[in-house]
Amino acid sequence: GKLSEVLFFPDPAMPCHYAGNCRRNNCTYAHQPTNLTRLLQFLGSARSTIDVCVFTITCDEIAEALLAAQKRGVRVRIISDNDQSKTQGSDVERLRAAGIPVALDADQYHMHHKFAVLDSRMIANGSFNWTRQAVLFNQENVVLSDNPALVAQFCRQFEILWQKYYKR
Amino acid sequence: GKLSEVLFFPDPAMPCHYAGNCRRNNCTYAHQPTNLTRLLQFLGSARSTIDVCVFTITCDEIAEALLAAQKRGVRVRIISDNDQSKTQGSDVERLRAAGIPVALDADQYHMHHKFAVLDSRMIANGSFNWTRQAVLFNQENVVLSDNPALVAQFCRQFEILWQKYYKR
Ligand SMILES: [Zn+2]
Ligand SMILES: [Zn+2]
Repeated sequence: GKLSEVLFFPDPAMPCHYAGNCRRNNCTYAHQPTNLTRLLQFLGSARSTIDVCVFTITCDEIAEALLAAQKRGVRVRIISDNDQSKTQGSDVERLRAAGIPVALDADQYHMHHKFAVLDSRMIANGSFNWTRQAVLFNQENVVLSDNPALVAQFCRQFEILWQKYYKR
Repeated sequence: GKLSEVLFFPDPAMPCHYAGNCRRNNCTYAHQPTNLTRLLQFLGSARSTIDVCVFTITCDEIAEALLAAQKRGVRVRIISDNDQSKTQGSDVERLRAAGIPVALDADQYHMHHKFAVLDSRMIANGSFNWTRQAVLFNQENVVLSDNPALVAQFCRQFEILWQKYYKR
């Protein structure tokens, strides 16, 4: 494994959608790389599969990265928490409506993971829920790793949870 | 690094305090190794320092492992979330009362990490808050690693947060 990177949030600002071409006066969005832009780039590097197992997803930029992956032919699957998926701002139902298969836990406890496996080859994992609050305000971490032993364990657990929660 | 282990919770039961010597009829506690006993063993392997940076601590077995470490001469430090530390069942004030230095974030946002660094040489990190609910009920992960690049990044971040939050 060559990838052993930790992203420590919060970021100073959400990324500017105009990035290098921003002409707005006093634009308060970020024009330099941030932890979020690194995570989006990481998700953007998937070639064949993204298996997401995350408690809550409300960060629209991350949801857009998953939709973009699906559009370029990456097979995306999502496991998330049933209670969180119904809360305001959740992107989970929108991702499901776009054709991404979603599995929700069926109980009152927390499907509390915050990991993703890319191409059965790399993982993101840590404290970071995929929310705007976590990006901008919380102290959070995301580890990016291609350690084969770690990746194999997360792949296996994803399949176990997918079997457990996915309803056709 | 030789350590690349992932603990996946929930456990089937809390560990029996009598372990191999349990004579209780129909004891419903766990008498075999569990994810929690592995985590306790991991904390028990620290020789000089344990730096804890965890959102919430209510699992008494883990609190006891920190107290035991302190008693055998390990220097323990704790960073936690100020709001969580006041909730019922929190072990943070008890650990502070026992002489372990505690730093709390001072804001309304979440100090949401769930990591610990042992001897500046190994880390535990993941989704797992140090709570009884996370042990017994939630889907959670803890990565145990001695990858030097990862450990160095968590050591550095611990010091940054300690400087930010610790009040003498
Ligand atoms: Zn801008
Ligand atoms: Zn027993």
